[in-house]
Amino acid sequence: MKFCSKPIASRSKYNDVVVQCCHLAEGHDGKCDEYPFLRHFQSVTPNVANKIKRDATMTTGAAWKSDDAGPNRILRWVMKLPDEELAKYSLDMTKLKPGIVAKLREKAADYDSCIEVSIKLTWLAYQMDNCPQPPQALIEYLESFHGKMKSSSTVCEICKLPMSFSDFSLAVRGKAEIETCHKNPRLHNAENVGFAHRECNIAQGAKTLDEFYTWIEGILSRKNS
Amino acid sequence: MKFCSKPIASRSKYNDVVVQCCHLAEGHDGKCDEYPFLRHFQSVTPNVANKIKRDATMTTGAAWKSDDAGPNRILRWVMKLPDEELAKYSLDMTKLKPGIVAKLREKAADYDSCIEVSIKLTWLAYQMDNCPQPPQALIEYLESFHGKMKSSSTVCEICKLPMSFSDFSLAVRGKAEIETCHKNPRLHNAENVGFAHRECNIAQGAKTLDEFYTWIEGILSRKNS
Repeated sequence: MKFCSKPIASRSKYNDVVVQCCHLAEGHDGKCDEYPFLRHFQSVTPNVANKIKRDATMTTGAAWKSDDAGPNRILRWVMKLPDEELAKYSLDMTKLKPGIVAKLREKAADYDSCIEVSIKLTWLAYQMDNCPQPPQALIEYLESFHGKMKSSSTVCEICKLPMSFSDFSLAVRGKAEIETCHKNPRLHNAENVGFAHRECNIAQGAKTLDEFYTWIEGILSRKNS
Repeated sequence: MKFCSKPIASRSKYNDVVVQCCHLAEGHDGKCDEYPFLRHFQSVTPNVANKIKRDATMTTGAAWKSDDAGPNRILRWVMKLPDEELAKYSLDMTKLKPGIVAKLREKAADYDSCIEVSIKLTWLAYQMDNCPQPPQALIEYLESFHGKMKSSSTVCEICKLPMSFSDFSLAVRGKAEIETCHKNPRLHNAENVGFAHRECNIAQGAKTLDEFYTWIEGILSRKNS
């Protein structure tokens, strides 16, 4: 699909870092829209629309309270800027602990990748058990990127069990039961992302998914020997 | 071994909850000592002595900052007291979130179990790779509880790989690489505790160790099918 790509006005203070733009098809009718594929979720389950947008475009949130702890969530494409550019936005990376800097920097991704990730996540969410039925135009939009959608086919990227859309509203101790996961935790692009159960994502940790499988194979073989 | 069991003066405000006592053998020479088995670590690697004592006797620490978040670490046997008793120590459990209460309560353990856990952990630590050599009397003390010690035989309770004593001083982002783990996370007694790598303990999460193995077997069988 060729996007309309007309700039969308944003009130973000990072407005000049990237020109955010319309992702309707070129020559579309009506108003431009940066996330047209999230309109339906926005009207029927806004928490899911917001989660997809947030996970796709923002670095991870953290309960960082101290002065040297860094910003809580920040746009992933802003994290692509060098330290001197970030300083202009009052983000002094040199004041943060190295571990925090590494954590923020490894979440960096360009704007187009973030949009592609949000389209992929939307496509996956509509293929979960108990998902609301998307309008026909949206089905066609999503399928033009990622192929035919099949009801109840989305599994946890890690444990491979089916995922239920209703788990989006389940939370234990304030933590959502469905998380966005990365086959390689340091790559944020459409091919590399999916949904996972929180407990599976925590178990995978900083490993790639392949490393995780190799690791648990080793555990079982030592345990059984 | 029959303990001396003479009371040991403590300045803790929870002094009257439990009578802390001497764990040297009955009829011992010299001064009474609550943790005689930790004396050697205390002199050569105090961080390990302190960790064993802390993990054995205190509830988990957490970065709980808000008013309703509960105490950071508290003696496990204090957590056995009913709410009305705790209120006398300015611990108002009714003001805490149910999740925090559950987390604190599931760490509760009686004093004797905590002492037994600290003896077991000490016995395991001395059987790690690169461990300082314990004095002969200490070997005999520890072996009287848990049997013959064998150099370099302590493995991670979860992944079964050998553990190195030097990992006690390794920390990533302020988190120790060796953690005390529980085969059943809700039971704090000598039989049920061991050491584990931090990443293994995180992966096990709230599952029992048996549940964890069954879970990862399922993941691998689905992944390979």
